[in-house]
Amino acid sequence: MPASSPFSEFLSAVAQRGRSIIGIRAPDELDISSSDVIALCHNLLSSKGDASGIALSFEILERYQLLDEGEKLKFFEGLADDFAADGAIVQQVARTYLDDPTPNNLGELSRATVPPRRNLIIRLNQAPNATFQLISMRSDLLDLLPDHPELKEVDRDFVTLFASWFNGGFLQLRSLDWKSPAEMLEKLMRYEAVHGMAGWSELRERIAPQDRLIFGFFHPRLGNEPLIFIEVALMKQMPSDIASILEPDAPPLDPASVRTAVFYSISNCQKGLRGIPLGSFLIKQVVEELKRGFPELKEFVTLSPVPGFGQWLRQLIEKQNGEDSGSELPNTDIEQLQQVMSVEWVSDETQIQPLKRVISAAAAHYLSAEKDSKNRPFDPVAKFHLGNGAKLERINWPADHSQNGVDTSFGLMVNYLYDLNEIEKNHEVFVKTGEVKVSSEVSSLAKTFDRSVNPPNIRDRSLV
Amino acid sequence: MPASSPFSEFLSAVAQRGRSIIGIRAPDELDISSSDVIALCHNLLSSKGDASGIALSFEILERYQLLDEGEKLKFFEGLADDFAADGAIVQQVARTYLDDPTPNNLGELSRATVPPRRNLIIRLNQAPNATFQLISMRSDLLDLLPDHPELKEVDRDFVTLFASWFNGGFLQLRSLDWKSPAEMLEKLMRYEAVHGMAGWSELRERIAPQDRLIFGFFHPRLGNEPLIFIEVALMKQMPSDIASILEPDAPPLDPASVRTAVFYSISNCQKGLRGIPLGSFLIKQVVEELKRGFPELKEFVTLSPVPGFGQWLRQLIEKQNGEDSGSELPNTDIEQLQQVMSVEWVSDETQIQPLKRVISAAAAHYLSAEKDSKNRPFDPVAKFHLGNGAKLERINWPADHSQNGVDTSFGLMVNYLYDLNEIEKNHEVFVKTGEVKVSSEVSSLAKTFDRSVNPPNIRDRSLV
Amino acid sequence: MPASSPFSEFLSAVAQRGRSIIGIRAPDELDISSSDVIALCHNLLSSKGDASGIALSFEILERYQLLDEGEKLKFFEGLADDFAADGAIVQQVARTYLDDPTPNNLGELSRATVPPRRNLIIRLNQAPNATFQLISMRSDLLDLLPDHPELKEVDRDFVTLFASWFNGGFLQLRSLDWKSPAEMLEKLMRYEAVHGMAGWSELRERIAPQDRLIFGFFHPRLGNEPLIFIEVALMKQMPSDIASILEPDAPPLDPASVRTAVFYSISNCQKGLRGIPLGSFLIKQVVEELKRGFPELKEFVTLSPVPGFGQWLRQLIEKQNGEDSGSELPNTDIEQLQQVMSVEWVSDETQIQPLKRVISAAAAHYLSAEKDSKNRPFDPVAKFHLGNGAKLERINWPADHSQNGVDTSFGLMVNYLYDLNEIEKNHEVFVKTGEVKVSSEVSSLAKTFDRSVNPPNIRDRSLV
Amino acid sequence: MPASSPFSEFLSAVAQRGRSIIGIRAPDELDISSSDVIALCHNLLSSKGDASGIALSFEILERYQLLDEGEKLKFFEGLADDFAADGAIVQQVARTYLDDPTPNNLGELSRATVPPRRNLIIRLNQAPNATFQLISMRSDLLDLLPDHPELKEVDRDFVTLFASWFNGGFLQLRSLDWKSPAEMLEKLMRYEAVHGMAGWSELRERIAPQDRLIFGFFHPRLGNEPLIFIEVALMKQMPSDIASILEPDAPPLDPASVRTAVFYSISNCQKGLRGIPLGSFLIKQVVEELKRGFPELKEFVTLSPVPGFGQWLRQLIEKQNGEDSGSELPNTDIEQLQQVMSVEWVSDETQIQPLKRVISAAAAHYLSAEKDSKNRPFDPVAKFHLGNGAKLERINWPADHSQNGVDTSFGLMVNYLYDLNEIEKNHEVFVKTGEVKVSSEVSSLAKTFDRSVNPPNIRDRSLV
Repeated sequence: MPASSPFSEFLSAVAQRGRSIIGIRAPDELDISSSDVIALCHNLLSSKGDASGIALSFEILERYQLLDEGEKLKFFEGLADDFAADGAIVQQVARTYLDDPTPNNLGELSRATVPPRRNLIIRLNQAPNATFQLISMRSDLLDLLPDHPELKEVDRDFVTLFASWFNGGFLQLRSLDWKSPAEMLEKLMRYEAVHGMAGWSELRERIAPQDRLIFGFFHPRLGNEPLIFIEVALMKQMPSDIASILEPDAPPLDPASVRTAVFYSISNCQKGLRGIPLGSFLIKQVVEELKRGFPELKEFVTLSPVPGFGQWLRQLIEKQNGEDSGSELPNTDIEQLQQVMSVEWVSDETQIQPLKRVISAAAAHYLSAEKDSKNRPFDPVAKFHLGNGAKLERINWPADHSQNGVDTSFGLMVNYLYDLNEIEKNHEVFVKTGEVKVSSEVSSLAKTFDRSVNPPNIRDRSLV
Repeated sequence: MPASSPFSEFLSAVAQRGRSIIGIRAPDELDISSSDVIALCHNLLSSKGDASGIALSFEILERYQLLDEGEKLKFFEGLADDFAADGAIVQQVARTYLDDPTPNNLGELSRATVPPRRNLIIRLNQAPNATFQLISMRSDLLDLLPDHPELKEVDRDFVTLFASWFNGGFLQLRSLDWKSPAEMLEKLMRYEAVHGMAGWSELRERIAPQDRLIFGFFHPRLGNEPLIFIEVALMKQMPSDIASILEPDAPPLDPASVRTAVFYSISNCQKGLRGIPLGSFLIKQVVEELKRGFPELKEFVTLSPVPGFGQWLRQLIEKQNGEDSGSELPNTDIEQLQQVMSVEWVSDETQIQPLKRVISAAAAHYLSAEKDSKNRPFDPVAKFHLGNGAKLERINWPADHSQNGVDTSFGLMVNYLYDLNEIEKNHEVFVKTGEVKVSSEVSSLAKTFDRSVNPPNIRDRSLV
Repeated sequence: MPASSPFSEFLSAVAQRGRSIIGIRAPDELDISSSDVIALCHNLLSSKGDASGIALSFEILERYQLLDEGEKLKFFEGLADDFAADGAIVQQVARTYLDDPTPNNLGELSRATVPPRRNLIIRLNQAPNATFQLISMRSDLLDLLPDHPELKEVDRDFVTLFASWFNGGFLQLRSLDWKSPAEMLEKLMRYEAVHGMAGWSELRERIAPQDRLIFGFFHPRLGNEPLIFIEVALMKQMPSDIASILEPDAPPLDPASVRTAVFYSISNCQKGLRGIPLGSFLIKQVVEELKRGFPELKEFVTLSPVPGFGQWLRQLIEKQNGEDSGSELPNTDIEQLQQVMSVEWVSDETQIQPLKRVISAAAAHYLSAEKDSKNRPFDPVAKFHLGNGAKLERINWPADHSQNGVDTSFGLMVNYLYDLNEIEKNHEVFVKTGEVKVSSEVSSLAKTFDRSVNPPNIRDRSLV
Repeated sequence: MPASSPFSEFLSAVAQRGRSIIGIRAPDELDISSSDVIALCHNLLSSKGDASGIALSFEILERYQLLDEGEKLKFFEGLADDFAADGAIVQQVARTYLDDPTPNNLGELSRATVPPRRNLIIRLNQAPNATFQLISMRSDLLDLLPDHPELKEVDRDFVTLFASWFNGGFLQLRSLDWKSPAEMLEKLMRYEAVHGMAGWSELRERIAPQDRLIFGFFHPRLGNEPLIFIEVALMKQMPSDIASILEPDAPPLDPASVRTAVFYSISNCQKGLRGIPLGSFLIKQVVEELKRGFPELKEFVTLSPVPGFGQWLRQLIEKQNGEDSGSELPNTDIEQLQQVMSVEWVSDETQIQPLKRVISAAAAHYLSAEKDSKNRPFDPVAKFHLGNGAKLERINWPADHSQNGVDTSFGLMVNYLYDLNEIEKNHEVFVKTGEVKVSSEVSSLAKTFDRSVNPPNIRDRSLV
């Protein structure tokens, strides 16, 4: 029966034929257990693994998938306990090093502390489709981690290997279009995390017109599975709302009038790669790629949500309403902000103008002054782009009337500007001082607002 | 100007344009020094590297190549000294762990001992063509290592990363033929380490006929650059000499009469990957691939040199000639062996028959009983194949009349048999007991010869 | 529109740049006329066309597309009149030949009669995307033909060239799957002519499961544009209704249990290629391809509509109801058939059994005995498959409850069997005698029914 | 032989399996005859061919190849006689047309005159690799034609079909480089007709350096088999001798200093496509392609041989030596030209300067004024380039010291300039008046020489 590719077909055949060679029978969902899988893992690290590595790895990964959640937890506990570095040896080597801290003894100590499970994961990777399955395995692990901090060290081994395997040199930038494999495009729909697509016709509008582009990072081992992708609109100027991009059936732009590339959605696809930095590398490469392909482009900006703003603003207003408030904001602003909550601006355009100034000012303040415990922008999307060295160029309100946009960003969207000649300098200042780059317009706006609340804890789906 | 591939072209453009961004001028061969390069390496690990990673990495690798040998040594010493783990911190963390040996403290210790140069190498890898340049860098390092043991820890970091990057899952098995890119085939000629090719017409004879095949491992990042390749002849039966394979202008076999696949040459291509096991994985995958493509194949054997045999035999005879010998070999054998050295068997066929038995017996003994300090076969090719779980099936003499064949193998070649149903069992026995698998014929031969000498130290070019 | 590859992009650039070279301005929809286009066609056949052929061809095809229907008619009339063979010369050459009928004079006559428009079409074909545009041009011509028989000779020139360009040697058989380009799959949905697909999810069910396959013929010049395609289901046995194939969410078959390949839809995609035989060649190649890929397949059958049966049956019954009928069918059959029309068998299963025999018998008669004026089966699908040498294996009723199935085929579907060992013999008998091959079961059924009506005139959409 | 793709393999399988279906046994070289092959051709045009077309076509083409020259002649005579249009029918249709010269009757006449062998060739084309074999078949026919003018009509049918199959729209322009398939590059060596290559290292020098390019036309049906190719050197200025291009181990140019693209060799590869114009189309597309890829290029010129000049000059001098000469050339020129023949200028540089003016003048005259019976340049290469609309820019002597260069071109080479803005105009003037475009320098040179001889009959290998 047709397999995904000739070579993976071949690997599958080897792996499955291997069962008879390694002397085990096909797994049965009823009686599969984590201890079986752990036992096979020991085999894989033994001399058996030298000879039958592909077959054993395949078997382990297949059986793992059949485990229920409880057995998966036991499996990870097995990895944590059975495949850790040998404490007795580490202690001995550590003492030797402390007695005689030579480079060689330091090296020995380093090697003694490496848990065997790291080599186990490398061996598992030889099975067909293993890289994708290992990413899924870590995704399971991430779900267990909050309640099982004892698995943290196991997770760190995955991260160490993934950081090595998915480093910039091994990523492949691909431009997707309406000629791309349907399987690949279907995944875009599934993984889109910012402005969801309702189906193929919406997807088609984002990829088939000449002024709409999608780029993604892929990995040679993962086939049509994207790691992260970014959606781009070529426009005449910096847009101030999302409708101007997503409007259906808009006629494509005359290529000659294109001036601005707008990044309006960036989505991580693989939960199991959380913590492996991909977005910053992607966005910079896409800027370079666009410069080459469209020399007429003058400006590279995002149109981004501000996912922490809604909650922050609501908490701010609640506090103002509380007893201990009053003095920190001008009375007129307080009144206006209180009004914001009750006014139907989403459906009633006449309500917008009076509110626009105070909301924009609050947003300017929120984005440039509200920081987390590490002195980084509290807002996750702002942290990503400003951390990359982009500049906060403009605040747009209202810019997103969708339910999700109103709920999380209070209808606000902002433009971050990527100027390749400024990025490095901005990034260095950011790393050293925490200071973020904003346009003079945003800076002025922020000065009209001077009040801070303790920011709530918010996760952004798209850029974790 | 045409570049190797669109994307590498793009990376080059980015990298070169980067010079102005990162504020350095193009290197000048006259004044380039290792200290400049080390300074850039520090930048790459700092926040500068987040923003300008590709450009910095490209610059470092380009400049490295312009260093002379002395400066390269200083560069590696810089890696050893400046990019090692911080001893003070390690000592502190080690003490914490010894006081409180929790898994978490063990993890901390493990991380504290990782030298920053490992992350440096990962970052360097993002430059265009970096993986190949890093392999070359390690090749330089291997040249320096014998005289500079203090660089051993630097080498271990390369090995750790290469073992992760070149693990089985990331290798691509390709079948090469006369339609393959000329650039790729040219490399085969250059890397062939067992039976050298004099030019394109010899190459053509090894790859164009239907009964001649070449397979190689490639890596997605290395383009047309092979890692290792193996040459295969499809034959009617197990061959007993190399001429029957390399004979020019032999008519290709009728596919229906093919019965035996013969592996007659396997060559590692990248010195910088020494120590990363590729050969064993390749040979097994090629067996699987051939089984699929040619279901009529019944037998998979090598026709291999015995590169340690010549020297071993000569030393054995010398010793026999020395004073303290005499009793250990039957007199007739001694005489015959002494005769071997003086007889012109290469050019005089009549001399062969009388010598055949004693040489074959000596070889059977040499291959099955002469072991190194770890109880592995002393002969490097035997160690490779028997360690893989193959069986020593037959000894052929004379089988190779070439100068190199006579010098190193004394004209001897042997067949190792790869039987997929036996490999795992043989390998396990080998790992546990050091016992090697030989056919009954070879076993009988070996019994007629009972004498051992201390084996000399020999390296085989092809299978290190 | 077919794919634009880099090279077609290049051709477009050349073609468009060409306007300035050939000294004409960009067309304006308002004032474009057929006489302009005809004038450019004269240029293309002159020495101007040697130098600026691509640009001129591009211009002609672009302008043609802007013509309205009336101007298109004038354009074709221009082709008919201005680009016909020169009558005066033909008459002279014809007389020479009649006087002296040598092979050479015959050749001269043949060449004199070739209309210059044939060379014109060959020259037009050099423009980017020209082949597709020429097919569309003929599609327009086919629409005009019924009312404009004077254009028949123009059409014949298209047919002559298309028969040469789309002959078997230049067609490419491709297997489509869920990894195929989205653009290509979208076209399948548009062109499906037998069992329409409502959207991407229905398409996915026909192509993504392991037991569903689609094959098509493509042409190197037409990119992702299919010429014809066939949909295949791998099954345990010959199916008797379409629901068993199109049922959503059916679990895919175990590959080991597959025994029968079922062709359940075949659709021509390019109206402009009407009359160029593709279907017969496709179905035979797909049988060969499936035999190679799935050696376990034992049987190759269709599940086909009988698109002329509905109308034939209704006319038959009407006639029976008319005055001059009565004697030709047994009374019971007449009654049953009359009943058929009024009975709600589509929704009421209990009505089916009593009607089954008489309808099946009528169908057996219709398919095996009702012939057109050339003694071919009157039913267009039957004519196609039986003409190919297939055997009418089984009649299934009811087999298709869809509105279209009930309207055209009266809910009937049949299985034609493709037995490669019989096809040639059956085809020869068919060509020589008009006799069609039916199974003994169908033959027996037909004998129970002996009545014929003049068949109405019916076109089948899918197999013209 | 062209590439065998997986699909052609499939076709081969079908074709060979077909033998049993079509009921014939494998051919035996001993008893194969043209009458067998002709009999199979009749089958192919009958209903048998509908069902077993691929198998029959394969069989015919395979058997044809086994025929000896005498039997091949008989085979072509069979095509001429048995597969001609039916004279009796043509005569009848011709009379009908003469009586009533309607368009429809003209169409009928045209169809009646088409020989059935044209359809036969189209059917043959469906076999695997058939297009290449049909080209070879015509190559055989071209060899027979001079002695067998009765086969001329058969040849015209091949030409008619090849002109349709190899028209511009179906050709694929490919850029070849050192990554191209070895099989393809090997063919370049074999087909090079202007400046022969001695082996792979010479080929490598023409294709691997960044300033050397090769482009070719390919056809989708012919795999790696080129139709025609052109070799290009990127240079600082227009070259005046071939050594400056072919010099081994010259360092590649700095891309920034490239200004001129030089076409120094163009070779037709398929003798069987003689008469199908490819060169003019190729050279113009390559100019466009180079403009796109190297915007810094300012000038596109050839460095071309003058293959008729040697013989023309020798004849001229002989005549001058004859009795009836004397007055037509100035005495000094006569003396110098006579001297030319005896002087060892090839090896003696001091002899060159005195001869340079008179030889250049003779060449300027030869190229611009010596015409054939159709008023086209007598020199075949000049006819090609000047006919394309190029300008004769410069005459270089001595420019080619190779034996072949001295023999045919008297060591002369010239530059033809391709200026896309002038080509069309030049071509039109050429077609209408026969006038060729020369630079003022060449024009002045020509005026210093005023004498014409009857040009001898010369064929150029490379541009027929």
